[in-house]
Amino acid sequence: MEFSSKLLENAVQEMSQLPGIGKRTALRLVLHLLKQPEERVEMLSNALLQLKRDVNFCQKCHNISDTEICEICASPKRDETLVCVVEDIRDVMAIENTSQYNGLYHVLGGKISPMEGVGPQDLNIPSLVQRVKNGSVKELIFALSSTMEGDTTNFYIYRQLEGLEVTTSTIARGISVGDELEYADEVTLGRSILNRVPFESSIKAD
Amino acid sequence: MEFSSKLLENAVQEMSQLPGIGKRTALRLVLHLLKQPEERVEMLSNALLQLKRDVNFCQKCHNISDTEICEICASPKRDETLVCVVEDIRDVMAIENTSQYNGLYHVLGGKISPMEGVGPQDLNIPSLVQRVKNGSVKELIFALSSTMEGDTTNFYIYRQLEGLEVTTSTIARGISVGDELEYADEVTLGRSILNRVPFESSIKAD
Repeated sequence: MEFSSKLLENAVQEMSQLPGIGKRTALRLVLHLLKQPEERVEMLSNALLQLKRDVNFCQKCHNISDTEICEICASPKRDETLVCVVEDIRDVMAIENTSQYNGLYHVLGGKISPMEGVGPQDLNIPSLVQRVKNGSVKELIFALSSTMEGDTTNFYIYRQLEGLEVTTSTIARGISVGDELEYADEVTLGRSILNRVPFESSIKAD
Repeated sequence: MEFSSKLLENAVQEMSQLPGIGKRTALRLVLHLLKQPEERVEMLSNALLQLKRDVNFCQKCHNISDTEICEICASPKRDETLVCVVEDIRDVMAIENTSQYNGLYHVLGGKISPMEGVGPQDLNIPSLVQRVKNGSVKELIFALSSTMEGDTTNFYIYRQLEGLEVTTSTIARGISVGDELEYADEVTLGRSILNRVPFESSIKAD
């Protein structure tokens, strides 16, 4: 792609570093911004910079928060004995959206992935083990994605907890509510038969 | 979408103002930026701000340029008697990419679109008429998209040029090179039969 201006090329180049944004999309976005008033561009730039500079992570669960301890961890209505282990804050938002969970979270910040150079030391695992050692946590719910990396991470944490008094569970895998069986993949369908639940409890869940 | 941080919400909000970027994509992009070193975020912010503040449009053709007159307009190798009228600078880049055109451009900055509140006064039409009046332009090539708005804009300019000595043409519409006839839409196929070209000239074009 040949640009008639270095400034334009530079802006497109920076924009196209974002995941899923190619050169063409970046150019479209940059030209859109060019048509906006200067204060709009300033607002976008400042919002990104301010977030990066002043972002704070909850000291307890590592969720993004404007306060030292996030609202969820600080709430007296939450069940402190339950901790749900998730990959990133989008998972916290997704689970919060269901209004079905009343415990706390622990945001790992990723999954163990040798391919991407992410080892256990890059994740918030020591602080999780410390939380369990402190004694108030009775159950850890693993809610990582069920990929090789997710399973590895679950297992690594599980081994770190050996000898500590804590129950571990993982979220249920199965056919999505409303899905047709014929379109489900075999692994999911197989697991959902192995891990079948008593009919009475499936009624209660709704 | 509920956010655990105002800073995060603000950044996502600003990001999702971009065309084609929804809230979820915006969140993904913002979380990606959060994982980057601060200087990367600064580079993106600065590139956008700098472009917006220091952007310069060529005084002749309104293409984005770092100099008063863009490289294309300033080049002595270009045919000054030919001017291709396009909607925005992406069209200039697309045509330049073909290496088939040796004339100059005129970037209108949009199309006449009453639906979107864009009238002739919002486009670079007076300066185009002035260029023709100045005398060196012999042919205008309309290369706007063949939509209602594009056709309206072509026709508006055409009327503005009445009485001036200039040839007008539009780029050829037809079946894309390599396309199967059976999948072509009827309007395009119909036009491509009406506007058929002598076989000899089609050989030369390749």
